[in-house]
Amino acid sequence: MTNEAIDMSRGVPPTDLLPTEKVKECAMSAMDNFGRSLLQYHSKITPTVQGFQPLMELLADEMGNGAKQENVLIGNGSLDVFDILTNSLVEAGDNVLVESPSYDRSITTLERAGCNVTGVPLEEDGLDTGRLADLVEEKNFKLLYIIPDFQNPSGITTSTKKRNEVTELAEEHDFWIIEDSPYYKLRYKGEHKPRMWDLSPQKVLYMSSFSKLIAPGLRIGWTIIPEDINEKVLQYAEDSYITPSILSQGVVYEFLQRGWLEPNIEKLKESYVVRLNALLENLESKMPEASWAEPEGGFFVGLNLPGGTTFTDLEEKSEELGLNFSDSRKFFPEGGDVNFLRIPFCTLSPEEIEESISRLKEVL
Amino acid sequence: MTNEAIDMSRGVPPTDLLPTEKVKECAMSAMDNFGRSLLQYHSKITPTVQGFQPLMELLADEMGNGAKQENVLIGNGSLDVFDILTNSLVEAGDNVLVESPSYDRSITTLERAGCNVTGVPLEEDGLDTGRLADLVEEKNFKLLYIIPDFQNPSGITTSTKKRNEVTELAEEHDFWIIEDSPYYKLRYKGEHKPRMWDLSPQKVLYMSSFSKLIAPGLRIGWTIIPEDINEKVLQYAEDSYITPSILSQGVVYEFLQRGWLEPNIEKLKESYVVRLNALLENLESKMPEASWAEPEGGFFVGLNLPGGTTFTDLEEKSEELGLNFSDSRKFFPEGGDVNFLRIPFCTLSPEEIEESISRLKEVL
Repeated sequence: MTNEAIDMSRGVPPTDLLPTEKVKECAMSAMDNFGRSLLQYHSKITPTVQGFQPLMELLADEMGNGAKQENVLIGNGSLDVFDILTNSLVEAGDNVLVESPSYDRSITTLERAGCNVTGVPLEEDGLDTGRLADLVEEKNFKLLYIIPDFQNPSGITTSTKKRNEVTELAEEHDFWIIEDSPYYKLRYKGEHKPRMWDLSPQKVLYMSSFSKLIAPGLRIGWTIIPEDINEKVLQYAEDSYITPSILSQGVVYEFLQRGWLEPNIEKLKESYVVRLNALLENLESKMPEASWAEPEGGFFVGLNLPGGTTFTDLEEKSEELGLNFSDSRKFFPEGGDVNFLRIPFCTLSPEEIEESISRLKEVL
Repeated sequence: MTNEAIDMSRGVPPTDLLPTEKVKECAMSAMDNFGRSLLQYHSKITPTVQGFQPLMELLADEMGNGAKQENVLIGNGSLDVFDILTNSLVEAGDNVLVESPSYDRSITTLERAGCNVTGVPLEEDGLDTGRLADLVEEKNFKLLYIIPDFQNPSGITTSTKKRNEVTELAEEHDFWIIEDSPYYKLRYKGEHKPRMWDLSPQKVLYMSSFSKLIAPGLRIGWTIIPEDINEKVLQYAEDSYITPSILSQGVVYEFLQRGWLEPNIEKLKESYVVRLNALLENLESKMPEASWAEPEGGFFVGLNLPGGTTFTDLEEKSEELGLNFSDSRKFFPEGGDVNFLRIPFCTLSPEEIEESISRLKEVL
C-alpha cells in the first residue's frame, strides 16, 4: 500500500463488482419488450404511479404472506421512498423513534419533515425494548424507523424475540414501523430472522432496494404499504414526481426474470465475506482494546473506540492518517461527540482494510 | 369515430411519436461508454449529486450567457426538481405567487410545502403586471412560479415587455422567479422571446425537461440555479435521493451527442402544428361564441367557456359525452368553479380533436 488516502466514508459496492454487461443486456431487452411503456408517463399506460407493473408483481410474489402488488411502491432509490413514506405519515411536530445510532440520512429526512427524533439505545441484540416500552408509554410516537438486519451503522441484527416485542408494542400503542432492510439478502453467516413485516403487516412498512444487490445508480428502492395508508402514500408519490424513473425498473425486471439476481448475490457474498473476515482479524490482532458487534451480513462494522477516544479526536488526525471517515456524530440523534466509528468493509479491499486498521491503530 | 371515450385530461406526447428505437440505441452506447459510472452512486464517481456530468456540461453550454455546469441540477423529472427548488427556498407560511390559472401539480407542490399561494390574473400577453406590482408592494413574497412560453394550462406566452417588468420587480422587491419552460423548443409560429433567465440570471431559476422533447418516462428535468442558493439547493437534493437516476441521463446525453434532438423536435412540431390547426379550425367553426388565446407552441389551448357554462356543468355531462377532462378548478389557486377548459391538442389525433369539439358543442 502506498500512502494514498483510503475512503472509509461510504457504504458503496466496489465498482468492479457491478454487473455492467448484464445490465446492458437487460436494458436492451427491456427496450425491446416494453419500449413504449418505459418511455411514456407511466400512469397513462397502466393507471398507476407505483412503478413498472411487471416488477411490482414480481416483488409482491416474492414477499409472499399475502403481499399484494397494489400495495407496492417502487421509487427512485430507497431514500426517496423513505422521504415519501415519512411525509405521508408525519406532520411537523410529530414524535418519531429511531435506533441510536441509526442511518444518518434517514435521521436527516425525519428532521427536515419537522419531526422530534428520539433515539432508542442499541444493544447487541437490537434496540433496548425496555426503554422503547417506557417511551411509548410516556407519549405518542407516530413511527419507529428501524434497520433490523446488519444495521447501518452498527452491523447489529435485531433478535427474533425483540422483533416480536417491538411489533407488539406498535400494535398496542398504535405507531407505524418502517422496516428498512436493504442488506437482508447479504447474509454471510447464521439464519434469516423473520421480517418484522411478517409479524405485523398491518403496522409495518417494509422497505428494500436493489442498490446493494445489483447497482446503486439504478436508484430502485421499494416498499410494501399497509392497506390503511396505501392511497395516502401513493397520492404523495404522484404529487412528488408523477411517476418514477421507469427505464431502470424495466432493467431490474429483466435481471430478475433471467434468474440473475441470486447468482449475483452469491458472487457478492463470496467477495464480501472475505472482506468482513479480513476486518475482524485485523481488529482482533491490532485493536484488542476496542469492541464491536460481529455482523452476520451487510456492509458495516460499528467500532466502539477504546480509551475514551472520540470521533472528534479521530477527525482531527484524519488527514495525517490518510483516512476519510463519515461523521459518526450524525448517526446519533442526540448530537454531541461519540466514541464510535463505522467501517464499511464491503467497499474496501482486504489490503485497504489491513492498511486502514494499521493506520487507525497508530492513533488509538 | 366510434363512441369511445376521448381522454382530454393529460398533456402527454402521443405514444407513437416516442423515439423507442433511438432510445434503445442510446441506452446501449451509454452502457458501453459509461457503464460503471452509470451504475454507481454517482457522487462517488464525480463528487456531485447534480447528475451525469457530461450531460450537465452540454446543458450549461447550450444555455450560454455564462451558465456554469456547477449550477446545473438534473433530477428525476421536472416536478421532482420543482419540489426540491420549492423546499430549498420556502418555509411553511411563506407567501408565493403563481399565474392564475397555472399548472395544477405545481400549485399542489407549493401548497404542500406550506406556502400561501396567491394567483396573479393572466392576460393575453402574460400575467397582469400592474396587479403583480401592487401585490409585491403590499407584502413580502418569496417566489413567483411562472410558465412564460405556451403556458400550461392557457397556452399564453408572456410578452417581452412583461418579461422585463417581472424580472425588474423581482430585483427591486427581492423575490425568486422559477421560470418553468418545458415547451420552449416546441414553437410552431412566431419568434422566440428572451428567456427570463437571460434578463436576470441572479434572480431566475430556469427549469426545463426532456419529457416533451424526447420521452416522459425517462424522467429528466433540470434547472440552472443562481449562485447564491446553489449550495443550499444541492444539499436538499442530496438529502432527498443521494443521487438521481443516472441511466436515463446517460441515454439523454447520447441522444444529444448524436445530434438527434433537433430532428426529433422538428418531427414533433410537424405533427403538433397539424393538431393545433385542427383544433383552432374546429373551435372557430363549431364554437364561435367561446374564446381562447391562440398558442404559438406547446401542448394546450385554454378555452373560456361561453354562456356562463362552468367546469362543473361540463363535468356532470362528461360520462354522457364520452370525454375525460382534467379538473379545471385545480388550475386556479383561488378555488371555486370556473368557466375554463384545458384542451391538450398534442395528445389527440385530428380525428379525436374534431370529434371531441363536436361533442363539447352539444353541451355548450
